[in-house]
Amino acid sequence: MSPNAPCGTVLSPVITPFRDDLSPDASRFVDHCRWLMANDVGLAIFGTNSEANSLSVQERLDLLDHLVAAEIDTTRLMPGTGCCSIPDSVTLTSHAVAQGVGGVLMLPPFYYKGVSEEGLFRFYSEVIERVGDDRLRLYLYHIPPVAQVPIGLGLIERLLKRYPEIVAGIKDSSGDWGNTQAVIDAFGAEGFRVYAGSERFLLPTLRAGGVGCISATANVNPRAISALGASWQGEDADARQQALNEIRDIFESVPMIPALKATTAHFSGDAAWDRLRPPLISLDESQRDKLLATLTQGGFTMPGIAR
Amino acid sequence: MSPNAPCGTVLSPVITPFRDDLSPDASRFVDHCRWLMANDVGLAIFGTNSEANSLSVQERLDLLDHLVAAEIDTTRLMPGTGCCSIPDSVTLTSHAVAQGVGGVLMLPPFYYKGVSEEGLFRFYSEVIERVGDDRLRLYLYHIPPVAQVPIGLGLIERLLKRYPEIVAGIKDSSGDWGNTQAVIDAFGAEGFRVYAGSERFLLPTLRAGGVGCISATANVNPRAISALGASWQGEDADARQQALNEIRDIFESVPMIPALKATTAHFSGDAAWDRLRPPLISLDESQRDKLLATLTQGGFTMPGIAR
Repeated sequence: MSPNAPCGTVLSPVITPFRDDLSPDASRFVDHCRWLMANDVGLAIFGTNSEANSLSVQERLDLLDHLVAAEIDTTRLMPGTGCCSIPDSVTLTSHAVAQGVGGVLMLPPFYYKGVSEEGLFRFYSEVIERVGDDRLRLYLYHIPPVAQVPIGLGLIERLLKRYPEIVAGIKDSSGDWGNTQAVIDAFGAEGFRVYAGSERFLLPTLRAGGVGCISATANVNPRAISALGASWQGEDADARQQALNEIRDIFESVPMIPALKATTAHFSGDAAWDRLRPPLISLDESQRDKLLATLTQGGFTMPGIAR
Repeated sequence: MSPNAPCGTVLSPVITPFRDDLSPDASRFVDHCRWLMANDVGLAIFGTNSEANSLSVQERLDLLDHLVAAEIDTTRLMPGTGCCSIPDSVTLTSHAVAQGVGGVLMLPPFYYKGVSEEGLFRFYSEVIERVGDDRLRLYLYHIPPVAQVPIGLGLIERLLKRYPEIVAGIKDSSGDWGNTQAVIDAFGAEGFRVYAGSERFLLPTLRAGGVGCISATANVNPRAISALGASWQGEDADARQQALNEIRDIFESVPMIPALKATTAHFSGDAAWDRLRPPLISLDESQRDKLLATLTQGGFTMPGIAR
């Protein structure tokens, strides 16, 4: 890994497999993490696309422990640990740090809307102080379309000033390139690591001085995305970016999380992947048929995916 | 209590006191619950105004146990038990039912936005099936300004049809009287209990066939609100409603939750009440001064509030 991005250039919010009783399936989870790592993709487990907010705190603790027991390289992990409450966020973050993760990706508390910058500053500060561990590397998670609670430049500035060693970067899932660029311009030079929330912005992010992307579709298209991350200064970078965008377009034509699971189920031949926890549900038959037909026609595959 | 509303006509989402280390203060919590009950207000503990989403599951379990140990009448309790995840919602709901609560008030899972009616139906169904207790009385919690995930008429209809004994009612915090009326018109006749989310709609709700309100300001103005609930068919009902609205207006002129705490701190003489968990913060000095001056000028008091 580049010392500039200890968790790697491209990470995936790892989709979470469920058994037929909707309990997390640790065995398939480990298999999928290994496949992603083999494709040079880091593991942003417990992200939005992981249905992490549909898991209890204990379920997340247990799944991380399974990865550790399976000897997954924990420095490549960036688990999501941000919850609505300080105690839950502290529990998950402390445990992750103790397991040696490369960083944690922390949502703002997302129940109350229209909260103040001061309130968010205090929330993150309380979590950092209570975790009380110099090894913590905290990545802020800006995803206003879902969390509805944004992380603005003023908050980043205050947190960086107060905790310069600990506040390590951000994932910007706003989908607003202007915001990503503004964050890089404001804080990139001092080592603040900016990840785009989609590979659609991978090349622009790297060219602007960001460090990579953490992207849903890296669950299914890891090799091509990590290849651009590794060769973004090459002559074919724009063509590679264009090819990534075309596949991204296909996934964005249907609901993303069930699309990732339907695709994984299809190309692995393992129908168990096509289970989601409510309130999310599988694609309906016509959505799935259209998605898989389009992918297959384009020659899409998931080489080496575990069955 | 009217057999039509076992938890009572007026309930309060009980504000949660914190110690200076931000841990929940069970002793003050019990005191406040007793004062509300003495003013004929039921206890919708762990609501939005309770900062419940800033508490861990365990903290909520413990606080409820404290009320039980203090011999609070649990049939007047309607704890909030809806979380983003099925397991957390089941844990809280099962425990509440085992403690003999009159009902539970259940948020939809609120992280993922734009979810389908089918997904929400499956979420609530899973929770009901896993709790698996005929004593469960579930009130749906419709609060789109905060949760951003609405509970529509189609969902209510499906849940009522599938679980007619268990799905007992709704709290409508949309602030949209047209919606409240539509829900009463559609389901009130079959015994579905509709609570408005503000005393501003108490009289209209009762006249339309709803059962009452669950209101933030019942934390500070319980006697006057419960009095209208008890005498809404009296000649002075409209005047009482108007008087309630005027006090409500004052509280709505500043952020509600810190306003409730600042007011309770002031009129009890107990400054410890003026603590919130981040991301929420206390009123600033000018907001507090203005609020308390306006209340005092209007002759507002909280008689009998514990110091």
